[in-house]
Amino acid sequence: MTTDVIADMLTRIRNANQRYLKTVEIPGSKMKLEIAKILKEEGFISNYKVTESEAKKKIVIDLKYKNKTRVIQGLKKISKPGLRVYAPANEIPQVLNGLGIAIVSTSKGIMTDKQARQNQVGGEVLAFVW
Amino acid sequence: MTTDVIADMLTRIRNANQRYLKTVEIPGSKMKLEIAKILKEEGFISNYKVTESEAKKKIVIDLKYKNKTRVIQGLKKISKPGLRVYAPANEIPQVLNGLGIAIVSTSKGIMTDKQARQNQVGGEVLAFVW
Repeated sequence: MTTDVIADMLTRIRNANQRYLKTVEIPGSKMKLEIAKILKEEGFISNYKVTESEAKKKIVIDLKYKNKTRVIQGLKKISKPGLRVYAPANEIPQVLNGLGIAIVSTSKGIMTDKQARQNQVGGEVLAFVW
Repeated sequence: MTTDVIADMLTRIRNANQRYLKTVEIPGSKMKLEIAKILKEEGFISNYKVTESEAKKKIVIDLKYKNKTRVIQGLKKISKPGLRVYAPANEIPQVLNGLGIAIVSTSKGIMTDKQARQNQVGGEVLAFVW
């Protein structure tokens, strides 16, 4: 059985965002924590924290709204278990001409498309957020 | 004075869509009519028609909503009077990995990114719609 835990994370955020929920809980992992960190740094979410109960780590994400408008307009998983998407350093995609971000898993860690270009590293294109 | 009539068209649609208006009127032109046609074909709007009063052509666009959700999530002008964006046939951009469309002005007319790829023509990347 192949599970795509990043797709699951994006789906949970998308559903909570659609329903204008304040927070959303996600089963924790190092990679997902890195993604939450990027979403915070890029202004897509208000905050995130890690909680632990019964030895199960969770990431709690505070969603962000401005005057009843969602700050996250969309999230899309790009690389998938059945169809991995890799981009070399000079072909890191832009999202909506810079309106959104791509989240890229590189040898130097998980970063935005802009950071990958600055660091001149390629990697697996995990997702688009806009 | 440089006016960007396509940017004006997109702004009018964006504003009307934001306010959930049923229709939006746009000063007519051949190019804008072509764009309206593409928006209809791609399912982003319900309909469009041309009206004429006092010798002024107008395009009336019927916006599309599904259960109070906007079918058009976003529109973005890409090529601008100060910064023209051209793409050769083999570098026609995808919008959100195929979730949206690019509108491209080519030697064979105004078409979507998919049509440009099929026709193997490049052109000016007018706008993204998603």
